[in-house]
Amino acid sequence: MTGIDTVVERADAAGAKWRATPAAERAAILEGVADALLKNLDELWPVADAETHLGEVRLRGEIGRTASQFRLFAEVLRDGGSAEAVIDHADPDATPPLPDVRRMNQPIGVVAVFAASNFPFAFSVAGGDTVSALAAGCAVVVKAHEGHPRTSDLTASVVRQALPDPDLLGLVHGFEAGGPLVRHPLVTAVGFTGSLAGGTAVKGLIDQRPDPIPFYGELGSVNPVIVLPSADPATVAAGFAASLTLGVGQFCTNPGLVFVPEGREGDAGAFERAIGDAVAATTGGRMLTAKIHDGFLRAADRLAGRPGVARLSSGAAGTAPDAVTPQVFSVPLEAFADGLPELGEECFGPAAIVVKYRDPSDLPAVLRRLPGSLTATVHAGPGAAPKEAGAVVQVLRRLAGRLIWNGWPTGVAVTWAMHHGGPWPASTAPAHTSVGAAAIRRWLVPVAYQDWPAALLPPELQDGNPLGVPQRVDGRLRA
Amino acid sequence: MTGIDTVVERADAAGAKWRATPAAERAAILEGVADALLKNLDELWPVADAETHLGEVRLRGEIGRTASQFRLFAEVLRDGGSAEAVIDHADPDATPPLPDVRRMNQPIGVVAVFAASNFPFAFSVAGGDTVSALAAGCAVVVKAHEGHPRTSDLTASVVRQALPDPDLLGLVHGFEAGGPLVRHPLVTAVGFTGSLAGGTAVKGLIDQRPDPIPFYGELGSVNPVIVLPSADPATVAAGFAASLTLGVGQFCTNPGLVFVPEGREGDAGAFERAIGDAVAATTGGRMLTAKIHDGFLRAADRLAGRPGVARLSSGAAGTAPDAVTPQVFSVPLEAFADGLPELGEECFGPAAIVVKYRDPSDLPAVLRRLPGSLTATVHAGPGAAPKEAGAVVQVLRRLAGRLIWNGWPTGVAVTWAMHHGGPWPASTAPAHTSVGAAAIRRWLVPVAYQDWPAALLPPELQDGNPLGVPQRVDGRLRA
Repeated sequence: MTGIDTVVERADAAGAKWRATPAAERAAILEGVADALLKNLDELWPVADAETHLGEVRLRGEIGRTASQFRLFAEVLRDGGSAEAVIDHADPDATPPLPDVRRMNQPIGVVAVFAASNFPFAFSVAGGDTVSALAAGCAVVVKAHEGHPRTSDLTASVVRQALPDPDLLGLVHGFEAGGPLVRHPLVTAVGFTGSLAGGTAVKGLIDQRPDPIPFYGELGSVNPVIVLPSADPATVAAGFAASLTLGVGQFCTNPGLVFVPEGREGDAGAFERAIGDAVAATTGGRMLTAKIHDGFLRAADRLAGRPGVARLSSGAAGTAPDAVTPQVFSVPLEAFADGLPELGEECFGPAAIVVKYRDPSDLPAVLRRLPGSLTATVHAGPGAAPKEAGAVVQVLRRLAGRLIWNGWPTGVAVTWAMHHGGPWPASTAPAHTSVGAAAIRRWLVPVAYQDWPAALLPPELQDGNPLGVPQRVDGRLRA
Repeated sequence: MTGIDTVVERADAAGAKWRATPAAERAAILEGVADALLKNLDELWPVADAETHLGEVRLRGEIGRTASQFRLFAEVLRDGGSAEAVIDHADPDATPPLPDVRRMNQPIGVVAVFAASNFPFAFSVAGGDTVSALAAGCAVVVKAHEGHPRTSDLTASVVRQALPDPDLLGLVHGFEAGGPLVRHPLVTAVGFTGSLAGGTAVKGLIDQRPDPIPFYGELGSVNPVIVLPSADPATVAAGFAASLTLGVGQFCTNPGLVFVPEGREGDAGAFERAIGDAVAATTGGRMLTAKIHDGFLRAADRLAGRPGVARLSSGAAGTAPDAVTPQVFSVPLEAFADGLPELGEECFGPAAIVVKYRDPSDLPAVLRRLPGSLTATVHAGPGAAPKEAGAVVQVLRRLAGRLIWNGWPTGVAVTWAMHHGGPWPASTAPAHTSVGAAAIRRWLVPVAYQDWPAALLPPELQDGNPLGVPQRVDGRLRA
């Protein structure tokens, strides 16, 4: 038996007790994990900083966010709505007669999580996939990201102190651990945040299983931003430059495409000028890993060489070792359309393309050809906006999972309403989210009980609703 | 442009208006389809009988069920809960400040549906996949099953009369239509009911897309039945024989494995004897197609030749042309375990294996090795049942989507609580169901609106809740 087998089998055994633990108790334990993370904040961030170069402020903030995620899922468990309890009482007089059927969600089993490079806490060992799976009643085995192995080990040890059984959170290291993990018969679902190439490889491994299991992957996103003519160039340019360079551009919600009105004949236009100036004033930084650094430079060079693409401006690299420079390119809408699908590919890092259009009515036909994104953003001035945005919004709704008005896609709120997903490659399962309360659904499967003895029913499905959870009874939702 | 391209593009165009149609109007139209099906009942069933040999009683009943499915989804739309509206108001005082985020489900786009052979109405052109997708606001293109092409054409014409635009329901024929349909860029999700081989092929086609789309397939199920020692042999045997032979065994919920207590040394045991006698008294019939007929005979012959498997009894074939004979085999638990995974494969038709065990505590280890099923059933006598069932139930919950007590899996109620899914191969997406109110979810994707102008928000997400739908507001569910 390999080490990975042992980790998965121990997780499965620990999961059997965990799934039987009442939701309220699981909630209290998740809050204990939040406390443990905050208590160890001073130890955690420097280890992560040495491995990721993300800096104290960002990392302290990210640990806080990670703790908040645990608290949100404690709230989700106490609410009880995620059980989605539905009770249909028997109707012997119906034609044909109807049995008593009661359905609720239950944990799917051991969940494998592939940690992301760019959030050493919030999308890693103790990240959103892990906490939502633990909340669902699942044990988790994380494949640590190669970019921050020590942070992963330390985080796991902090989280385990607060869990009833340390085996509930397994941790494996190394590229070669991914295959055996995904193929293990006891693994029932996979969460993945990373590149399109990496995600496609994991999907291939899953498809080789005799029983392909659900794959919840987030594989890349260009996050188009549509700037309508009524928007203010200076405001847009300042916001864009800040969003583009946040975290050295290493966010899945980084705005990679900005559609702006072009200028008149022979004039760059106010938006293009303002964006060029704003990006020129930015400073880059050191990227997460050498691989990501090299990949960014290659992708930016490829972009610069595409037909019709011009370099608009670059920022400063800054003083960090191997620091990269924010870069922005520009291209007319027609040339952009000709350059698809390549010009619609994500360039992970602080680089973006400004696409210049003549009239907003030219946009829908091109937007329809973009790949799926996590977000799409509209910028407009006050007043005439709704009418101006109409046709564009219809397209964006089918292109992205989150639509933002006069804001920027970076910074994803961890709340009840958040949706962090979209059509492929933004997500492999567009009905699901990896951030926010609904993320728990990925690790739940419904079970319906037909004419089942009351004594054997979970409390969520009992008449009288002893736990006070939301129930839909005979078709009526009761909150 | 091929014929399939035209059908899909017309469906997409019709879908654009349909998705913008208020849910209450869509509900009224679905009820109109239900009325149209019932009005044309006398015309529909004979066409289907000529193609499927299922008989008047069954087919009239199935058309009634199909109409009921349209009525259930009208009810689902009027309820509004399937929109899953969630509103988080902005919190500028939070750290970091939280934007206003509102999420609801919206139609995914054009849905491709592969019709099943065994339900020419309820899982075909106007079946559960089609109605749930129409309810979701999607246009549908059905790939008709080769076993009932004329029924498919007639059903489509009846449904289209009640739709605002006939292009909302496209219909294509022929095996070779499947590939181009599944690969069409405007198709956004696929529903499939059929064989493991067919479903695996469709999945392969989807994976070849540059943007793999969700695949909701139901690919086969053995539906284990666990008979505990306290059950009554005569009752179990009578119910089992009836369920096994219903519709000539051509149901995805057909009970293919029955685990019964063995007799004492040299004695077959009361359960085995009673089941053997009950099946001997049954009559088979003509199967749906020549291909299914041949496949059944081959699978039954293979079963008979497996080590340790004995023929227990056979029914009569009956007088229909090419009628097949119900068959039941028996095998000791140890030999069954040795014969896995082959002995756990579905044999589509009226054949089942009786697996004889010594003690219920021997079952969990073997049950854990079964493939996923749509259902699992427990039979027990009154009284001691809960204690007796405990360990078995724990395993069954991870094996099947619907657990039945002292009943039979055939006959799936179309209700709010129904779950018709399970781990692979029962379903390719175990979190989802193809029967019951929740089937609509497969065709919905969430869209979150961040700081979006109120004038552009759908009514379901507006403050004041003008449509009166269930909303979760700032974390609290309001029904």
